[in-house]
Amino acid sequence: MLMDDVVSIGLLGAGTVGSGVIKLLQENAPQITQRLGKKVVIKKVLERHPEKPCLLGISPDMVTDRFEDILDDPDIQLVVEVLGGIEPTRQYLLEALRRGKHVVTANKDVVAAYGKELFEAAEAGKAEFYFEASVGGGIPVIRILKESLAANKIQEVIGIVNGTTNYILTRMSEEGADFATVLRAAQSAGYAEADPTSDIEGLDAARKISILASIAFNTRVTPDNVFIEGISRITPEDINYAREFGYVVKLLAIARDLNDEIEVRVHPAFLPHSHPLASVRGVFNAIYIKGNAVGETMFYGQGAGQMPTASAVVGDVMEVIRNMKSDSARRFACTCFLDKKIRPKGEIRTKYYVRLIVKDKPGVMASIAGVFGNHQVSLASVIQKRTLEIDGQMMMAEIVVITHEVKEQDIQDALAVIRGLSIVHSVENIIRVEGGGKG
Amino acid sequence: MLMDDVVSIGLLGAGTVGSGVIKLLQENAPQITQRLGKKVVIKKVLERHPEKPCLLGISPDMVTDRFEDILDDPDIQLVVEVLGGIEPTRQYLLEALRRGKHVVTANKDVVAAYGKELFEAAEAGKAEFYFEASVGGGIPVIRILKESLAANKIQEVIGIVNGTTNYILTRMSEEGADFATVLRAAQSAGYAEADPTSDIEGLDAARKISILASIAFNTRVTPDNVFIEGISRITPEDINYAREFGYVVKLLAIARDLNDEIEVRVHPAFLPHSHPLASVRGVFNAIYIKGNAVGETMFYGQGAGQMPTASAVVGDVMEVIRNMKSDSARRFACTCFLDKKIRPKGEIRTKYYVRLIVKDKPGVMASIAGVFGNHQVSLASVIQKRTLEIDGQMMMAEIVVITHEVKEQDIQDALAVIRGLSIVHSVENIIRVEGGGKG
Repeated sequence: MLMDDVVSIGLLGAGTVGSGVIKLLQENAPQITQRLGKKVVIKKVLERHPEKPCLLGISPDMVTDRFEDILDDPDIQLVVEVLGGIEPTRQYLLEALRRGKHVVTANKDVVAAYGKELFEAAEAGKAEFYFEASVGGGIPVIRILKESLAANKIQEVIGIVNGTTNYILTRMSEEGADFATVLRAAQSAGYAEADPTSDIEGLDAARKISILASIAFNTRVTPDNVFIEGISRITPEDINYAREFGYVVKLLAIARDLNDEIEVRVHPAFLPHSHPLASVRGVFNAIYIKGNAVGETMFYGQGAGQMPTASAVVGDVMEVIRNMKSDSARRFACTCFLDKKIRPKGEIRTKYYVRLIVKDKPGVMASIAGVFGNHQVSLASVIQKRTLEIDGQMMMAEIVVITHEVKEQDIQDALAVIRGLSIVHSVENIIRVEGGGKG
Repeated sequence: MLMDDVVSIGLLGAGTVGSGVIKLLQENAPQITQRLGKKVVIKKVLERHPEKPCLLGISPDMVTDRFEDILDDPDIQLVVEVLGGIEPTRQYLLEALRRGKHVVTANKDVVAAYGKELFEAAEAGKAEFYFEASVGGGIPVIRILKESLAANKIQEVIGIVNGTTNYILTRMSEEGADFATVLRAAQSAGYAEADPTSDIEGLDAARKISILASIAFNTRVTPDNVFIEGISRITPEDINYAREFGYVVKLLAIARDLNDEIEVRVHPAFLPHSHPLASVRGVFNAIYIKGNAVGETMFYGQGAGQMPTASAVVGDVMEVIRNMKSDSARRFACTCFLDKKIRPKGEIRTKYYVRLIVKDKPGVMASIAGVFGNHQVSLASVIQKRTLEIDGQMMMAEIVVITHEVKEQDIQDALAVIRGLSIVHSVENIIRVEGGGKG
């Protein structure tokens, strides 16, 4: 094979995903070489623990702990970043791009927060910047949005993009267990981190939906634009009520184009059984995309894990090499050429499930319904269900309502009043109800 | 806008999909122009009924009934074919490609049967040949296989790729109606053609899986390589038994890489409820793809219809124009660079559901089980169920078995013997059981 037929890459990081990239390039070398007409060779690996890549057959003299060894190597035209984290990774990527080295990254944190400056660096260096693996693991959703569905005005993107929370909610739903119990089980099984905050509080999903919304709507969305609520307040009671009403509970990452503005949010939601996302179980991810021509679509797969993520990374590497072959670098520059307004949280309109504990007295339901009515919150279903004793004191009743579509601010105002009523023991939970067009 | 910023296309056909392409290019012109940096303009339309495009605002002098008017127009660099059928369409495509005009087509018939010569013509003319809309309507499965999952050895592709049959099976399943009744309803609703043969006998699905298998396994597969069985023999009884065993009945298009050879087949099958394809209802399509790195993925959407198909066509048009912009034509030549053997039908291994009507006598079950055993057909479940009177004669019993994985030839041999037994009234149906790794 001639030198011209070899593309040398520099790999930043040989942890889980980096090792997956090494393994994939080895195991599927025949397919990759044949499909590409080029051989992909890892020339240098940035890694503080040289034993990791060495165990996979990478020669020790190819491993370095100095990024400059990769940056200054003129043979390396393509840098693959699977280090994770914000710093120093962000600096590495900016320097590589400015020097004209193409970059493929799996790093959602950096892409979500620093997409703009990364694309500017790519522009300055006339380099390519690809990041398929940053959202949805092996699911090729970025390319689908940028290329396959490019003829559409994208109206809605709804993702189950965090495997940890979907695993927890699936087990809670199928076993009736409570959040804390399932979280511990997920940690033991390796499906949740020791510090699970980023997953269970929705921060991870917010980064991913920022990236998807930016591409779908051609406008810059960063994680601080996203309204975020996690899943730690979901109880087995809520899940049972969801089932009773014909819903499942999922942590959804939602982005919608409302023409004049967009809305972007991450929160648990009731989703009707008939929605394509409702059957996505366990650690699987799926992204539902609605376009004005294509209609409803959904893309499903493993949203994390060593080899699925490596599949996306090496898919991008192959795409960049195809571009290099045909001198077509910069096929895709930054696509955020619009500047759309983000709808404020209080203006968001959706349906709500509200669960209240109230004193079991005549007239309670009328009072509560009255407060909702005064705040333009119209009720679709009401259940007054169990009579229960709380704190050994008095008999209480549980009231569950599902509203019609209302404004977030209106229901929050109504609940503030309801919380102050002497007949109300507690507002136990409030969960948004989505996918209503479908059910 | 400068002339350089305009790409003129020639549209072959202004029927349902062609009208969709015209509408999409009009309605989404802002998005398309902005994303592409070029304006896409239809310059000529080949159509015998000029009133169709004219109703959509195409000027009558742009409509022609002579293909040469498009072929000979030097401004037209890109031909979009949505005429359908084999001839003269095939000739048009070959001529356009040989002349160096890029082609985007939605024509599964031509692509499935004549892929090889079309790619040769494209090679000769240094033209591009794209056909995303030929499989799965708006679902971007071709690009996913060729590009996004290119780093994988693809192990399995299972598609629900025919909306008509999925609609019929969904209604049979949900309403308990019989095939003929639902087919008539589907015809009235416009979900089945007046002559539904191509759909219900699996020919349409066979063309689509030929295309997918060719790309997935990098080897030429044509429709005559596909083992095909339609859905007309599926009865409500079979669907009820499927449900009882935890399955749904779907028309599946299956392609598997068995390393030494590949298998490609289309037939109704029992699929476990837990399989991602099991919840695909009505006219929706979905393609399940398993790769050695990415694992299980599934891609879901509308497999037909005017605007979903137009979404895929215009998505390809945009891709070709991106290639033209960057002088990177011929990014993808024919990818069938291997020559894999097709496993003969008799050698295919899967599980089977068999429903028999037998005389209700002692020893019947033992005889039948004996014949299966003699042919290496091992049984996983057996139900002997209803006792029923047939033809006013004698009491009969219904026996249903589900086998372990066996060779097609072995079970067919066993059934030949069983049909000859005097105690056997009839072999009512035999349906393959798939997706077993999942359930």
